[in-house]
Order: sequence, then structure tokens, then C-alpha cells
Amino acid sequence: MRLYFATSNRHKLEEARRVLAQFSIDIEIAPVKKLEIQADDVVEISRAAAERLCAAYNYIVVEDDGLYIEALRGFPGPYSEYVYRTLGLSGVLKLLEGAGDRSAYFKSAVSLCIDGLVKTFVGIAKGRIAEAPRGSAGFGFDPIFIPEGFDETFAEMGVEAKSKISHRAKAFQALGEWIAGVRK
Amino acid sequence: MRLYFATSNRHKLEEARRVLAQFSIDIEIAPVKKLEIQADDVVEISRAAAERLCAAYNYIVVEDDGLYIEALRGFPGPYSEYVYRTLGLSGVLKLLEGAGDRSAYFKSAVSLCIDGLVKTFVGIAKGRIAEAPRGSAGFGFDPIFIPEGFDETFAEMGVEAKSKISHRAKAFQALGEWIAGVRK
Repeated sequence: MRLYFATSNRHKLEEARRVLAQFSIDIEIAPVKKLEIQADDVVEISRAAAERLCAAYNYIVVEDDGLYIEALRGFPGPYSEYVYRTLGLSGVLKLLEGAGDRSAYFKSAVSLCIDGLVKTFVGIAKGRIAEAPRGSAGFGFDPIFIPEGFDETFAEMGVEAKSKISHRAKAFQALGEWIAGVRK
Repeated sequence: MRLYFATSNRHKLEEARRVLAQFSIDIEIAPVKKLEIQADDVVEISRAAAERLCAAYNYIVVEDDGLYIEALRGFPGPYSEYVYRTLGLSGVLKLLEGAGDRSAYFKSAVSLCIDGLVKTFVGIAKGRIAEAPRGSAGFGFDPIFIPEGFDETFAEMGVEAKSKISHRAKAFQALGEWIAGVRK
């Protein structure tokens, strides 16, 4: 089986591909522009994008994710990519100066269009924000996110280890399991 | 003539009404939900919302605006409302601690649906970010924005004075002038 991923982010493709391979599902990039609405929850953004694509495509997947920092009322959340481009890692660290609580989570919402319907799968990775950036693998806020139960940041772990525990891996895992169940 | 403003923000309605009254144009709130896409420029967001509404409504107006801070690469820009809710005034001031350049501008993009077409009018108010919040009129980032040529913040000026120089007032002024020209 082959799915089409509406993204231009090769890191996201790589993570999805590693997870879906276990289910004998192949995934490749679909060069379609997706609608991205403004909403506080990535689930709503992911579903709205998928619903738009469902009219024209089958077996297409969209994903939206964000870093939610508790002490900042969820900021940057759905606007993580924009905040990464403007404030960068240093801006987010500056906002947390003096904050006692550095807990945060990454949330991924993967939506699949299948025969005109949208199914959404959510994955969450809990953790905390590092005091300083560490590591160079991955992308975005990976150098400042330390997943629960680890001392390394996502960027220090590298893509193989990250693909076992990341929010995105969990969401694609749920998608894979659902497809495997439907196939039986 | 009467226009319909797709907003639930009474402050925005009040500013628009004051400006449009000069052109004998009345404006009232239309209780429609508008599409809000993610984009770095409020012009793109405003146009996308209007284009969606044009299929169903005539003489409807949408507005999108944002505060663009130079030292923060335009942040919070189109996500000003979200950033106001999460980081607040104090978060934005914290990001500017130690910044030599406090210059910023508010940008408003007003789009009008008229006979199936979208016309967009842009207004910009240049200024700088105050060291601390001052004043209680208006809404959002008004207490920390000092317009060029003034010492008071938007929130200290009050709505009548603000309605003469704000980004939103300028955009609605351009809309009023355009309608007046078309009417001749």
C-alpha cells in the first residue's frame, strides 16, 4: 500500500517512512499545497487541511504539529514553525528565563483521507525545555526539547532513536495500526 | 450605503464606523465565521477570508491586522491575537529586553467583497514599543505601542484620537475614498 504525504519537509517524511515500514506501507511526498488555518489545536488544523484535500485526493496524509510549553500557556503551539523562523530557539529560551516549570509537549495530528473520509491520529511526546540548545539532528525545536525519561534532546538522539518515541512517530504508529486492522 | 463587517470585535467596528461616517457609509457586524489561514502577511490572510465569503455575500468586509516588531523579524505579525492571549504584553516586553531597536508597525488589511470581486485596502501605523504598558483604552497591544510623532500609547490616546491615525483607520479611509470615487 502507498500513501501520499502533503508536506515538503523531508525530516517528517523520513520519520513517517520508518514507522510505516513495519506495516508494509510506503509513503512518499505529494507536491500539493495544503490549506493551513489558524486554530489553537493542531488537530483542528490537520483535519481542516485533510477535509479540503479529500475532495480531490485519496490515500493522502497531512500532518500538523506543535510544541506546547506549559508556562507559556501552550505557546508557540500551532505556530511553532513561524516562531522558530522569527524568534528562534534563543527567543523561546528567553521567554522561559526564571520560569520554574519548563515542562512542554510536542503534539502531532496526522489526518488521512480515505475514500472521502478523514481519520485523524494524535501522538504526544511529553518532556521539558532544555536550558540551552544541544545537538544537530532533526529540525525546528528539536535541540531544546528533552523527552520524558531521557537526558538527551531530540536533536542529540538522532532520527533513528527519535523515530521510536516522537509525537509524530506515535501518530503514524496509530495510523499504521488502524490500517492493519482494516486490512484484516 | 451599508457594509457588513465579519468581526466580533466591537473595538474594530467602532474604529471603522467613525472613519466611514465621513463617506456616509454605515457599517454593522455580520455574524459570519470567517476562514483564517496561516500566512506571514495580513494581506494574504484578509484576501483569503474575503474570497471565501464573496461566493455567499455582497458588501461584506473582513479585516486582519498585526503588530510587526522589527527586532523580532516581524513577530508577532499575523498571530498577534494568539500571542496576546498566550505571552501577553509582558512576554513581548521580555523578548525586547536589551534590544536597541524598538521600532514596530501595525498593519491592517481590509478586504471588501463587492459584486463577486475582492478589493483590499492596506493601512500602516509606524511607531515603537514602549518600555512598559500604559493606558487602558483600545485592546490588544495598544498599551505598548507608541505611534510615530506621539509620546502616548494607543491605549492612552483613547479611541477618538486613535481613530484618526491608526492602521485600521487608514485602511478604512482608503476603502471609503474608493467607494466615494466609484459612486461619482
